[in-house]
Amino acid sequence: MASVDVPVALLGYGTVGAAVNRLLNEQADDIERATGHRFRVVKALVRSTDKARSFPVDDDVLTTDIAEVLDDPEIAIVAEVMGGIEPTGEYVLELLRRGKHVVTANKQLVARRGAELFAAASGAGVQLRFEASVCAAIPVIKVLRESLVVTNVHRVLGIVNGTTNYMLTEMEQGKTYAEALADAQEKGYAEADPTDDVSGADAAAKMAILATVAFNSRYELADVETVGIDRIDALDVAAARELDMVIRLVGAARLVDGQVDVRVSPALVDRHHPLAAVEGAFNAVMLQGDAIREITLEGPGAGGVETASAVIADMASVIGTMGTGFLQNDAVWRKLPRLAKGEHRSPFYFHLSVDDVPGVLARVTFELSERNISIARILQHQNGDGAAVHVVTHEAREGALREALEAMAKMPEVRKPPLPFPVVSDRGVAELGWA
Amino acid sequence: MASVDVPVALLGYGTVGAAVNRLLNEQADDIERATGHRFRVVKALVRSTDKARSFPVDDDVLTTDIAEVLDDPEIAIVAEVMGGIEPTGEYVLELLRRGKHVVTANKQLVARRGAELFAAASGAGVQLRFEASVCAAIPVIKVLRESLVVTNVHRVLGIVNGTTNYMLTEMEQGKTYAEALADAQEKGYAEADPTDDVSGADAAAKMAILATVAFNSRYELADVETVGIDRIDALDVAAARELDMVIRLVGAARLVDGQVDVRVSPALVDRHHPLAAVEGAFNAVMLQGDAIREITLEGPGAGGVETASAVIADMASVIGTMGTGFLQNDAVWRKLPRLAKGEHRSPFYFHLSVDDVPGVLARVTFELSERNISIARILQHQNGDGAAVHVVTHEAREGALREALEAMAKMPEVRKPPLPFPVVSDRGVAELGWA
Repeated sequence: MASVDVPVALLGYGTVGAAVNRLLNEQADDIERATGHRFRVVKALVRSTDKARSFPVDDDVLTTDIAEVLDDPEIAIVAEVMGGIEPTGEYVLELLRRGKHVVTANKQLVARRGAELFAAASGAGVQLRFEASVCAAIPVIKVLRESLVVTNVHRVLGIVNGTTNYMLTEMEQGKTYAEALADAQEKGYAEADPTDDVSGADAAAKMAILATVAFNSRYELADVETVGIDRIDALDVAAARELDMVIRLVGAARLVDGQVDVRVSPALVDRHHPLAAVEGAFNAVMLQGDAIREITLEGPGAGGVETASAVIADMASVIGTMGTGFLQNDAVWRKLPRLAKGEHRSPFYFHLSVDDVPGVLARVTFELSERNISIARILQHQNGDGAAVHVVTHEAREGALREALEAMAKMPEVRKPPLPFPVVSDRGVAELGWA
Repeated sequence: MASVDVPVALLGYGTVGAAVNRLLNEQADDIERATGHRFRVVKALVRSTDKARSFPVDDDVLTTDIAEVLDDPEIAIVAEVMGGIEPTGEYVLELLRRGKHVVTANKQLVARRGAELFAAASGAGVQLRFEASVCAAIPVIKVLRESLVVTNVHRVLGIVNGTTNYMLTEMEQGKTYAEALADAQEKGYAEADPTDDVSGADAAAKMAILATVAFNSRYELADVETVGIDRIDALDVAAARELDMVIRLVGAARLVDGQVDVRVSPALVDRHHPLAAVEGAFNAVMLQGDAIREITLEGPGAGGVETASAVIADMASVIGTMGTGFLQNDAVWRKLPRLAKGEHRSPFYFHLSVDDVPGVLARVTFELSERNISIARILQHQNGDGAAVHVVTHEAREGALREALEAMAKMPEVRKPPLPFPVVSDRGVAELGWA
């Protein structure tokens, strides 16, 4: 690219698209000082050219016809900020095939159709970048791929959904689930239909992408074991506090003996763990690897301007690495198997609602010890005519724990089947040396 | 660089140098997959070729003669991991002039001689990278320069010295300053002569570099106002706890109305602030800017392998961006003035040891209100035959606060001159929207 002026196109001109255009204009001098280039939006694909826009564009820039982008040989880079899978995926695929670099903020697209998109990019010798698709402006993709080249990252822990983190923080302050959700909706953190956030689906897409990048092996979105936050009740929140922990929706991707496990689930997080300090709508991703012990990146994981900032950083990176073949595309070079179901190991927490009669605790501890699961802590509380038993185990095989919990569920004194949450307490690195 | 094989040289082959060579060997496949290249150490400059090495090299690699590196046209990239200012600075200068890219882990060199080194690099059309010079493997330089292109970063807050952070964390647990220092020395976090760490000098060099990169204007190391941690006493630690804060050695670089202020000082940090969660020998850097609100990077800020990881990431980035002119060198394109002494604004904490007689508090509050400094919180404790008064102010001009403290020091009831600490509480971004 000899030209100082780089013509770019946007697919979509909503909140993010308009913010991209505004920042490209307002920060044009900074961008030129950093990259030697100025980016100029020459086309923006929209559904209707009549709508009012938060940052105005010339009439000839807006178009409803993708062909105007596809067929314009001048356009070198396209930012996809329209969202959705169809027709977005077809557009991106065709843009790549025509030799245009693409930057996308679309986590569902990358998580679901990454394989074919990256293959098309490689085939055409162009880049597909997707920093904005995971945690907006938090530069976790760049850090994983360009800074942690020699670190053998083996674990990624993340709070990657701001809506649920906001809700859980509010529940810690005493709000019910329903109150916390209503509050999040009022503040604009949660959609009218909050399913994507509270079910963990949004977090699962981000974790699938992170696992793929961290372990250089494609991890399918469908293989992410996902549990939402709707199962959290006031008892759990209170017990967490008593255990000096907090509840967070944690995504965990692990590489264990050459096998990969990715899951999203509410977890109890020790108050001294860096993820416990992530409050409100913020996100954080902790990367653990051989040479770095752990690095945690924290920041706002959503927002129009934040997302636009990441989109533009990707455009700058495309320009900055063009022709060098550096670290671009998805870097998937191996095929690692999934860790078998139940083989996942973690400390766990669960609570039991039981009749307050003698012998219950003895039976509970028996079911655990039978399966070699050792207990770290037990709390027991009177609760009306019954009792609530809160148990934290040491690290255990998930399959063994589930068997124990099924056995407990059959006890006549147990009032409802217990559900396990993972516990995040050790940093996995505490005792490493300083050499 | 057409060749897949990249011959590199190391200046220094101690802990970091040997770790670089080991990682280059052990992770050669990963590096090649990321960059398309393999790095091979062909020369390593040492003081003596006889010493035992933690990762062995061939005899013909070690040399005591810098000319063997300078004169070898095959060597394209040199990693400086020997430390010191002389003769290191001359070596690096000459390497750059001869057209070799240099990667350095040397914060004192970058902070003190950055201007001439970067000028030489630009003159020769090569890169000088320095990620490892600030907080080891925490990729704050890359993030500032490549991810935050359009964010107008206006504030950098950092815990950038692990030794002092470890000591302060231990003091929170009840250790005295002397005990905490002895413990840090035993664990290898502190040198036998800990001056560089406890005086804040090490942190000051890192903050000068961060301010220069963040604000694109060179900030001289000599202009960093630096206060060490040796002034912290048990009273302060206890008062911090009572105020629900912790004491941290905080580096702060601010851009205020086009003027820059950089300082390192013990500070009281609100327990809900992300920097309060940084425990032990870890480091963290918080970047605040328009488009990102704030991003915090946390991790181990020292260590041989961690530093080596950053050195290699820089080598990979040199290869990955060669010839594109992307974001290399120091990007200093403007000359911003220093904020005038005393004009710095912050909330402050100070404590007074006073005689326990009526009227003292009235006089203290008078001296503050006279100078338009409003009080956020006061604690008063009996203390033998006297009293300890702990005061937290709202944001105040430092010069005005110092005047007030000087006036208090003259009061006959005040037993020793009070010293102010800044308070870090707001995140500066709390009420920004989510749009």
